[in-house]
Amino acid sequence: MTAEIITIGDEILIGQVVDTNSAWLGQKLNEYGVQIVRITSVRDDKNEIIETLDSSLSRSDLVLITGGLGPTKDDLTKKTLAEYFECKLVMDEGAYRNIENLVRERGFDFNELKQQQALVPEKCTVIPNLHGTAPGMWFEKEGRIVVSMPGVPFEMKAMVDDYLIEMIKRHFSLRNIIHKTAITYGIPESALAIKIEPWEDSLPEYLKLAYLPNPNCIRLRLSAYESDKEKVMKVIDEKFAELQKMIPESFLGYGDTSLEGVVADMLLERKETLSVAESCTGGYISSLFTAMNGASDYLTAGVVSYTVDAKVNILGVNREDVDRYGVVSEEVAKQMAEGVRRLNGTTYGISTTGIAGPTGETEETPVGTVCIGVATPHGTITRKFMFGKLRNENIKRASANAINMLRMEIKKH
Amino acid sequence: MTAEIITIGDEILIGQVVDTNSAWLGQKLNEYGVQIVRITSVRDDKNEIIETLDSSLSRSDLVLITGGLGPTKDDLTKKTLAEYFECKLVMDEGAYRNIENLVRERGFDFNELKQQQALVPEKCTVIPNLHGTAPGMWFEKEGRIVVSMPGVPFEMKAMVDDYLIEMIKRHFSLRNIIHKTAITYGIPESALAIKIEPWEDSLPEYLKLAYLPNPNCIRLRLSAYESDKEKVMKVIDEKFAELQKMIPESFLGYGDTSLEGVVADMLLERKETLSVAESCTGGYISSLFTAMNGASDYLTAGVVSYTVDAKVNILGVNREDVDRYGVVSEEVAKQMAEGVRRLNGTTYGISTTGIAGPTGETEETPVGTVCIGVATPHGTITRKFMFGKLRNENIKRASANAINMLRMEIKKH
Repeated sequence: MTAEIITIGDEILIGQVVDTNSAWLGQKLNEYGVQIVRITSVRDDKNEIIETLDSSLSRSDLVLITGGLGPTKDDLTKKTLAEYFECKLVMDEGAYRNIENLVRERGFDFNELKQQQALVPEKCTVIPNLHGTAPGMWFEKEGRIVVSMPGVPFEMKAMVDDYLIEMIKRHFSLRNIIHKTAITYGIPESALAIKIEPWEDSLPEYLKLAYLPNPNCIRLRLSAYESDKEKVMKVIDEKFAELQKMIPESFLGYGDTSLEGVVADMLLERKETLSVAESCTGGYISSLFTAMNGASDYLTAGVVSYTVDAKVNILGVNREDVDRYGVVSEEVAKQMAEGVRRLNGTTYGISTTGIAGPTGETEETPVGTVCIGVATPHGTITRKFMFGKLRNENIKRASANAINMLRMEIKKH
Repeated sequence: MTAEIITIGDEILIGQVVDTNSAWLGQKLNEYGVQIVRITSVRDDKNEIIETLDSSLSRSDLVLITGGLGPTKDDLTKKTLAEYFECKLVMDEGAYRNIENLVRERGFDFNELKQQQALVPEKCTVIPNLHGTAPGMWFEKEGRIVVSMPGVPFEMKAMVDDYLIEMIKRHFSLRNIIHKTAITYGIPESALAIKIEPWEDSLPEYLKLAYLPNPNCIRLRLSAYESDKEKVMKVIDEKFAELQKMIPESFLGYGDTSLEGVVADMLLERKETLSVAESCTGGYISSLFTAMNGASDYLTAGVVSYTVDAKVNILGVNREDVDRYGVVSEEVAKQMAEGVRRLNGTTYGISTTGIAGPTGETEETPVGTVCIGVATPHGTITRKFMFGKLRNENIKRASANAINMLRMEIKKH
């Protein structure tokens, strides 16, 4: 079966919020064999909402709407749906009590606007929203389903996980979509494509390969619309095993894993620890690791040593060496990595020092210059990189390269 | 005039990449009076691409396509456009040389797939891509324009800034859209709506108000489709000045500024400095500040003290107090903030210690408990918060609250 997503809100079209809900929904529903075939973002405009809803329903069995359920005047979704399904708004007891509780918990006053949030179109089935005031709504029209959910990501996500998936499974008989994604690191897309062409040509007809480029990472997704799940998954696993043999160094792993996820797993498995000394990456490396649950089992500490003083006072970098080699130098990166490793008594220490830009460059050190150090029980390695002119790109690329240098060092032993 | 965006790629619908390009394009074009009225994401499927392109062109004067220009087999956009505009693919000299240079710079080999990237439909005007191998394409059809760009964000953005905006300005006579956004902090949407209702009702007919909710921040956008720019902007400024009087504590500023942006500006203006001691936020606060250019002028250092040892050894937290009060306590937050401030000799020090979750909770300290400290020249304040169950929500909310507590302390003096 196919589904579509409609995201409602001027703020999406004017670009003041990024629609992260659709990607999350696409991934989530895909796991259950529901294929998103289109995502449409429309303005807070009654006629456009209705027109889009009509054309989506003409193509797909399930239409998921997010957004436009706020309590304020520019939110039209609920009124529009009541009109579309030709019914009036009625107070929903459960929603009312839920809002009452939420408001009490958070110590806000239970004002009139909040009470209005409990009004829903008479013909809908309410989907509880445990994290916010806007209830979800489930409508049926000639066997096809329209679901309206709040645009606030964590409210919508909880609603889907706690209720919607079950409701969809019950209402539709779902077809199996199988896919598995392998993640590669460090080979540009076109070079990878050439390198693995024989492998790609060896894939059976029913397996579809897709390249999913990311900065530094290219993900390869094999998917099949198949009923015999075990058989297909076995073939996929065999094919990916062949791929891994072709690019052993670059093959990171499977699924949602990321470069930092792979390193985290390696550290946990070996019961080894890590500390991080960041200058130009400014805490980004630490935040990548600590965004994952369980970071406290291997990440003891990070130091964002943005100034020379911090490098000297906290990490014990030698001030004369800073003057001699420059603060952006492999020598300083080395001392930072060894300093943070010593300071925290960790198995590994990694460091970054560079010019993220756009300002701060000197004649010898243009924007995009980054030196990285990795201190290990077997010694310290350093590398100097030249990235681009874009600050956030440089921060991300420096972080990825530092984490990958660590990964390669761990693999060595 | 109106425009639409079409983003192409299975990876978007399957949710393996978030479409950040559309938001960026929406904002960018809006500044130039081009209004995005719809965003549609479709699969790498020739017929769906053509069908969507047809319906977009029936509504809008300008259609911007991103994605599907990669060198690999699943990228269909270029072939499809050649077919749609009934012409063949030809080698573009400029694109060819550009790819040659890029490849040389980056030290990759100039393989056949890369050379194919220089093929473009005969009827298009090439838009140079200085950061990647896929050239942009500009097509004209009965006065309406179709533009195809790569999906890689920084390639697409540079293409728009360096070439496309000028081409659009030249081809269309653009109508003025004026808008300004004020940012508020700490008042929930519905409470804010009630509080400022008289102000909202006082707005002239031609000014449109939109609420743009964010975690912790509600942005209020006033927009008008007006030719007399000066007059309208004057009214908007007056109205926002009235608003600021109504909610002085919560009024953060204008435009794209963020909570951390406001604090950064305050610190720079006062020539004051900041250091950060993060436990549960794991470097996120530091990365928020260092993501902004110029952070080195006020942020001296951050310490991610994830373990008790790191808190004691680096920040000088008293180990007995950790045992007595617990590592997640206002006392430890106080010592962390004062410790990092002392260590780096900064004007302010802020700290976080808590349980981000989902694991790690104890009987006394459930997931979502976070203590925050702000050390200033006038003393140290601390607060204990109870957030939710979601790790990344907790990290973000703790970070925002820490930065806002600092903002309030700075405002006091």
